[in-house]
This record gives sequence, C-alpha cells and structure tokens, in this order.
Amino acid sequence: MSDKLVFAADIGGTTVKLGLFRADGTLLDKWEIPTRTLQDGKHILPDVAASIREKMDREGIAPQQVAGIGFGVPGPVDENHVAIHGCDNLGWGRVPVKGDMNALLPEIPNVVAGNDANVAALGEAWLGSGKGYRNSVLFTLGTGVGGGVIIDGRIVPGRNGAAGELGHMLVKPDETVPCGCGKCGCLEQYASATGMARLAREALAACDTPSPLRDLDNVTAKDVCDHARAGDGLANEILDRFADYLARGMSFASCTVDPEVIMVGGGVSRAGDTLLEPVRRHFRKYAYHPCVDTPILAAQLGNDAGIYGCAAMVLGI
Amino acid sequence: MSDKLVFAADIGGTTVKLGLFRADGTLLDKWEIPTRTLQDGKHILPDVAASIREKMDREGIAPQQVAGIGFGVPGPVDENHVAIHGCDNLGWGRVPVKGDMNALLPEIPNVVAGNDANVAALGEAWLGSGKGYRNSVLFTLGTGVGGGVIIDGRIVPGRNGAAGELGHMLVKPDETVPCGCGKCGCLEQYASATGMARLAREALAACDTPSPLRDLDNVTAKDVCDHARAGDGLANEILDRFADYLARGMSFASCTVDPEVIMVGGGVSRAGDTLLEPVRRHFRKYAYHPCVDTPILAAQLGNDAGIYGCAAMVLGI
Repeated sequence: MSDKLVFAADIGGTTVKLGLFRADGTLLDKWEIPTRTLQDGKHILPDVAASIREKMDREGIAPQQVAGIGFGVPGPVDENHVAIHGCDNLGWGRVPVKGDMNALLPEIPNVVAGNDANVAALGEAWLGSGKGYRNSVLFTLGTGVGGGVIIDGRIVPGRNGAAGELGHMLVKPDETVPCGCGKCGCLEQYASATGMARLAREALAACDTPSPLRDLDNVTAKDVCDHARAGDGLANEILDRFADYLARGMSFASCTVDPEVIMVGGGVSRAGDTLLEPVRRHFRKYAYHPCVDTPILAAQLGNDAGIYGCAAMVLGI
Repeated sequence: MSDKLVFAADIGGTTVKLGLFRADGTLLDKWEIPTRTLQDGKHILPDVAASIREKMDREGIAPQQVAGIGFGVPGPVDENHVAIHGCDNLGWGRVPVKGDMNALLPEIPNVVAGNDANVAALGEAWLGSGKGYRNSVLFTLGTGVGGGVIIDGRIVPGRNGAAGELGHMLVKPDETVPCGCGKCGCLEQYASATGMARLAREALAACDTPSPLRDLDNVTAKDVCDHARAGDGLANEILDRFADYLARGMSFASCTVDPEVIMVGGGVSRAGDTLLEPVRRHFRKYAYHPCVDTPILAAQLGNDAGIYGCAAMVLGI
C-alpha cells in the first residue's frame, strides 16, 4: 500500500476540494472545482470523476496505482457509503456515492464516503492536532457547530449518521429563543460565529460599559476575538460566556467517551489561545474530575482537514 | 474457541459474583464469594483464584479448556488491565489485575479486566437488551448513575477510564447543591435512587397536593415508582422530573455517539415502562431530530450483566 496514491473529494455547497495523497499522508496536489447544485446536484459526482480522470491522464497515473477515492459529503452517510436523507445544500436526495462513482470510474472500485464534519475529525486525528491519539473529539465552530468523534482511529458515524452532532446538545435549559433545529438552548446558539455575534449584541444591550465594539455596525465573532486579544474588558466577557457554553458541551462529550484530546476547528478557532484559554478554564469547572486535564487543542489542518480525512478513510488509518 | 469455557469475576464492595460460561454465552454456573476488603483488599484476587481453582477441580475442568478470565472492578482500569487510581471501596491502590492473577493462576494466562459499569454495558450489549446492536449506551441508575459506551462491539474505556461516567454530565446549570463529585447540577443528583428521593422530598415540601407519599416516613425511589404506577398524580410529577433530567443526559450521549440503542439498568430501572415512557417522551424533546426514535430499553440481565460482560471481554465479542 505504501507506494499507492489516494484521491480525496470534500464536497461543499460551493466548491469541491480535491486532493491527491501518497499513502504516507503526503499531500501531493490539491485543487478545487465548483459544486454544480443545479438539477438536484446530479452533475456533482460526474464532475468529480472527470476531474480525477483528467488529473490521472495529465500526471500519467495508472488506475492500479490508486488505492481508492474518499468522499466527504455535507450530510449523513450510511455504512454502505450512501448519502441518506438529503444533503440539502447539494440538492441531493438519497445518493449512493460509492455505487454512482463505481459506474463513473469503474477502474477505481474502492470508494468510501463519510459525513464531512466526521471526515474532518478523522483528518485532524490522523495528521492534525490529534496526531498520535487514537481517540479524539473535534468541535467545528463555524456558522453552526458540528464535529466528529474518533474511537480507536475510526469515525463513529452513529445509527442515524448523527454522531458528532455536538452543536445540538442542550447547554442552556432556560433558553426561549429556538435554534435552527427547532429546539431551544443548543450549543450552536452560542458557540458558533453567529452565536458569538448574538452574545455580543446581548452584552452590548445589557450594559453601558465602554467598549470599542460599540463603534461597530455589526459585531462579528472576529471583532470580539480581536478586541478581546487587545484587552477590551467587554469583549473578554463575551468571549468568556462563549467559552463557558462550549466547555459545557465538551464536558458532555468527555463524560461519554473520555477522549485523549479535544480539538477545536472551524473559522472561530482561528482566535487560538485567546479563545482556548477561557475554554480550558471553564472545562476544568464542568468536566468530571479525572478528565479536567484533557488537552484542548486548536485544529491544525484548516480547510484541508476534510481531504486529509477522506484519504485516511481510504487507507483505513 | 466454541468449545472453550470462560470464567467471569465481577468484584463488588461486598461480594464477588463469579460465573462460568460456554463460549456461546451459556451461563453454566454462577456463585458468589465475600469481598474481603481488609488489609487493602489484598485477599480479593487470591480468594477469586482459589474459588476458580476449586470449581475447576470439582468439575474436572482442565486449564486448556479455559479461554480466560474476565474481571469487572469498581474503578478505572487501564489498557494493561491494571486497576488505577484506586477502587476505593475495595481498599485497593494500583492493582495489576492481570499480572497478579497470572502469578496466582499461571495455568490460565489470558486475563482481562474492565470497569464494572463498562463491563455491565458490554454484557447487556452482548446478550441483554442490546443484543444484535454493535453500538449502544447503558445508563445504570442505582445509588448513583454510571454507565458504559459500546462502539463496534467493544467497550470505550476512555483516556482516564472515565468514558461512560454519564452521571456527571451537567443537566441543571442553576443547581446550588453540590454532587458527591464536587460539581453542581450533575445528572446523578436527580436520576439516581437518592436523586429520586430528593426530588420527592422537594416536591412534597413545595406543594400541598394530597398524595399517599405524604404518609411515608422516608419516600424511596421504589415508593415513587409504585405510587406513580398506581396513578398518584404527585408521584407521576416527581417521576416526570426524574425522566426529564435523565432524557437530557441521554440526549448528550446521543449527540456524541448516536447509539443504536440506549439501555437503562440498575435498581431504579425495575420500574420498567412506568419510568421509561416519560423518559422516551422527554428524549424526543431533547434529542437531535434524526435521533428522536432511538430505542430506549430496560436492561435485561439485572445483576448478571457484569459477569456476562466479563465473559464477553475474554471472548472479544
């Protein structure tokens, strides 16, 4: 296997990120193609197949050199590599990713697929901040909150493809504003980019404390993190509330699987230790006592985590 | 392996439950010996070894017929089958269960050990209410709340031996009374036998609603369940609060690993559907929407779950 090559395709709502890896994890090449979601997204897999075939032709890669293709898709995936009950932002209904790809690229029969957030967790566990650990949990903080759980080096997909849906754990039982999922008090309502902006609006409205945040029209998560790092008191208070909720969610995952490491990815995680230091402090408060020192680390692979994870699935890492 | 025999030893604070299994899961014999905790519990493993040897002698079992011995211990266990940082109620410090047993019974070299709550979860997953499922979570409701997580048919032990410590998830952030662990608002403070008794005391003090519970000196969890089943309104309200908190904890485990089945064991679970029906109703409210129909089932093996799980560990089920 060690001289084999692996293709990776991380399908997002706007672009498909593609990668070509050596089996040792070396990323040889990466590129993107647009995600064509028109006509129920029926062009997406043919576009990926054509792009991979073009790459093979141009680089002189023979099919027998290729160990397989790994896919990340933005929705739940069953154990037969079928995207189930809708990747809504692709226009997909039920799409048998492996079956369709086998018809499109029969010369590369080994095709595997996983949920994009879970696959990103596997990528980080393989060669990112989880490297060297067999058991880890990733919290992905973006517009929403997602994640993935890796046990014994493998993705835990879950009965309904919903393992690692860490954004929908109840962290504020007295919440009255509903989450996008319909429940109230979900982690995602606070520990996402939109959640941080909301916490900022609430904090600014609730007090008269001077803060440079008051000069901004729309306070973003980045604004809060930047001003917190610069020492603004109110920005630090907002960040502290964000960190408190996130740490509650982390403590739930910790009591369930007690991972070796908890990783934090997604756009908001770029704030680094400005964000993670208060998270670690609150985690010590909420975690069961043997687990208070579980490392909480920033993810390292950024937007490439998905393609790394796709390759890792193929390689059975 | 199929004609082999397996010994199981589930060590509790008062008794050691022992079992002799066929590899197909048939329980051939079970018995108990006292747990002698004096002198830092140094007699416990020699007593188990003597009892197993006596059983082998009496039944004419040759060492080569025995696939191994599985242990459940009331504390965390590392991957080398060492009981770590203290099984306090045994008097143990660090005890290398496998190493000690290999010295005591060298003719049966295959010795494995796990945490008792995790081992019970494996037993239920093997031949109890989780039979046929590869991924399950057990909530054990006794004096406290424990549990175990089974992924792909194996115990998830956790970095600190604390996976499945489901009783210490925060379910009531505004709680001011501390849990035994030092934190406030842990699931164990409500969804245990002692928690039910506390909820009953609080409910009785907070209202004047007539109830036969008022005639009792000390209301126990069993009293609440019995009177709820008999139709008492206040008992049903108490049970409903208990179920609400338990369902919160279940929803956290569900978002993390999305198990195929959630099992409920321990003494309190004897209430059966009187307890589980409100739990299912509240779970539908708290679970992420793809997971609302996850089966929530009463455990089936009772106090034997531990010895079943010990045997399953040996057999690599």
